[in-house]
Amino acid sequence: MTNIIYLDNNATTKVDERVAEKMLPYFCKYYGNPSSMHDFGGNVKHAVDEARAQIAEFMGANTEREIIFTGSGSESANLAVKGVLEAKKGRKHIITTRVEHACVLNQYKLLEKEGYVVDYIDVLPSGELDLSKLESMVNDDTALVSCMMANNETGVIFPVDKVAQIVKKKNHRTKVFVDAVQAAGKIKLDVKNTEIDMMSISGHKFHAPKGVGALYIKAGTLISPLIIGGHQEKGKRAGTEAVPSLVGFGYAAQLAQENLEYEATEVKKMRDALEQNIIKSVYNARINTNTDFRVPNTTNIGFQFIEGELILLHLSELGICASSGSACTSGSLEPSHVLKAQGIPFSALHGSIRFSLSRFNTMKEIDEVSSVLPKVIEKLNNISPFQKELKDLRAKSLIVR
Amino acid sequence: MTNIIYLDNNATTKVDERVAEKMLPYFCKYYGNPSSMHDFGGNVKHAVDEARAQIAEFMGANTEREIIFTGSGSESANLAVKGVLEAKKGRKHIITTRVEHACVLNQYKLLEKEGYVVDYIDVLPSGELDLSKLESMVNDDTALVSCMMANNETGVIFPVDKVAQIVKKKNHRTKVFVDAVQAAGKIKLDVKNTEIDMMSISGHKFHAPKGVGALYIKAGTLISPLIIGGHQEKGKRAGTEAVPSLVGFGYAAQLAQENLEYEATEVKKMRDALEQNIIKSVYNARINTNTDFRVPNTTNIGFQFIEGELILLHLSELGICASSGSACTSGSLEPSHVLKAQGIPFSALHGSIRFSLSRFNTMKEIDEVSSVLPKVIEKLNNISPFQKELKDLRAKSLIVR
Repeated sequence: MTNIIYLDNNATTKVDERVAEKMLPYFCKYYGNPSSMHDFGGNVKHAVDEARAQIAEFMGANTEREIIFTGSGSESANLAVKGVLEAKKGRKHIITTRVEHACVLNQYKLLEKEGYVVDYIDVLPSGELDLSKLESMVNDDTALVSCMMANNETGVIFPVDKVAQIVKKKNHRTKVFVDAVQAAGKIKLDVKNTEIDMMSISGHKFHAPKGVGALYIKAGTLISPLIIGGHQEKGKRAGTEAVPSLVGFGYAAQLAQENLEYEATEVKKMRDALEQNIIKSVYNARINTNTDFRVPNTTNIGFQFIEGELILLHLSELGICASSGSACTSGSLEPSHVLKAQGIPFSALHGSIRFSLSRFNTMKEIDEVSSVLPKVIEKLNNISPFQKELKDLRAKSLIVR
Repeated sequence: MTNIIYLDNNATTKVDERVAEKMLPYFCKYYGNPSSMHDFGGNVKHAVDEARAQIAEFMGANTEREIIFTGSGSESANLAVKGVLEAKKGRKHIITTRVEHACVLNQYKLLEKEGYVVDYIDVLPSGELDLSKLESMVNDDTALVSCMMANNETGVIFPVDKVAQIVKKKNHRTKVFVDAVQAAGKIKLDVKNTEIDMMSISGHKFHAPKGVGALYIKAGTLISPLIIGGHQEKGKRAGTEAVPSLVGFGYAAQLAQENLEYEATEVKKMRDALEQNIIKSVYNARINTNTDFRVPNTTNIGFQFIEGELILLHLSELGICASSGSACTSGSLEPSHVLKAQGIPFSALHGSIRFSLSRFNTMKEIDEVSSVLPKVIEKLNNISPFQKELKDLRAKSLIVR
């Protein structure tokens, strides 16, 4: 496991060594409980306050009072959705997109069974959102609209600001929740200049440790807690604060902020190089979301007529980590609901691979992957049961070139 | 903050240095997502599996499949209570004790508003549970009985095994939940030989990091998830596993298990010494729970006619950390609901201090506290508005001695 090339940063990331170092003293040295009366606890509380200010700054909140810490992006999304529906019962209509993460979509599937009506915004073949019907979807009964900021599988960026504007113009009482877990650390968040009511992020997607997240809740938004108990997080989330993780989370956010320009230029350069190299050298490869509106680190490539899991296993043997979709739905044999919603052809659906980079990748790694991947694909092409289709595809690609 | 004497281990504990060391590689080296297809994630999954086996062993579960990881003791308690009521709707009767932790009690207060009927088991003046009425409390409509294993403020141990037996004999469909957060690491847990259905623990109470907990759920117990999303924790708790914390949690449990004998002998010896020293040298001190059925690390002492928070502040200035009750309810001016339920006299209620030790304390520290505390109390006695009462108390104590 020493020489791996990690291109699965949308699943999780390496903790930045500087972040781990910042966390360390809070395990064995400054270990007090932030709620304790004594100074030893009080000093720890200051560290939590600082982390909250860093996250507020990172998300572009007006004040750190709008930030609630949680244990994960999934918890943040559950707090947002259940919290807002529980606090204001009555209205039973929800709007979301077909391509949300499982932590959002699976909630709505359950809510549908409980009598809620959920409308789904379609995506275009490019992976972008089809907003043409959104305004007409919103009605008096619409309690919540929820839309992710960047898709975890394809990296496509959704215009959440515009979504909020359309929704609020039609019904200002409707709450807007944005799952920004895959946008955070890749593109700038600036929630204060929007009409978004809630926004979730997760630390381990931008080099903070696993097990920590946050929910931005615009001042004045009524929300019921998911976890009841002590007074922590202003009564919105009970439980002793996970201090070391929070300290790491805040600092990782600050570092991510400082690296946004690097993401937009250098990480993007590496991603684009990988993409172009693959497309050039693998005749049955297709970019599943060939749009500019993508986070700079993600590409989703369909290798037609071969099996995605086989590609991943072969890459894994070479120490290359990638993914066939969300880690949170792995183990399922169903093809990606995101790619299906986009209308990706059946031939590519089962052979689609997500490569997601980070600032810790190097162009040397990209060159290495670009060099070995075509051999892997060639090997799998040779054992594919779709030999006729592959032959046709190859002939076609030769004509095009 | 370098020379503190930390006697607030029921609020939170120092992470054992060996635990922190075990966690470290999982931040920057083995950082894969346990759900990922590649070996890099798979190896991380093994670490999570090992932690689960360690926790199963620690709690005395039959199998590690009965262990669900969570983000805190509070989350575990919320998952237990809401999970079991949500999974089997209909019955509306709950039984609990008057002295549960806020993460349990505040849930029931809310459930009462939603139409549930909650009966409360009283405690005796010793702090022990009054089980005389329990059997008659249980009826056909009783969905849940919830009882802590050791009280966080007084350390009193409740016979949860017997509680479960009484309940199940009367109504075998009633679920029994035990909050063992303050028992774990202090006395042995052995859930498999009981009729308990669910048991919660929290890592940071036994030298694991903050932000991790577990819920034991007996095989065959139906429970709805609190956090919906991915397939993690067998669908009972979505969200990427907090791998480093889980690794630390498992190892801390193993170390705690190995130290139980030390807790029962050496830690108890220090606690008893502290208690006796204070009682001997401070005439207005009284042990609030003078029973043998206590975890070995906790004492709750009432300093009559003076203000607890003043004691804490003076001790804090001397680098001594203690508490006036639960950290989770600190900031509240209400006196402890636990001591009130016990019928602790008003004169001691506001001046009650919890000292909670750990295996990291030394007899030298106990001697130091025993030496400075009487001076602090004397100082506060002198500024107390209850001079007449103190004088009477002093006279009486001189006669007794």
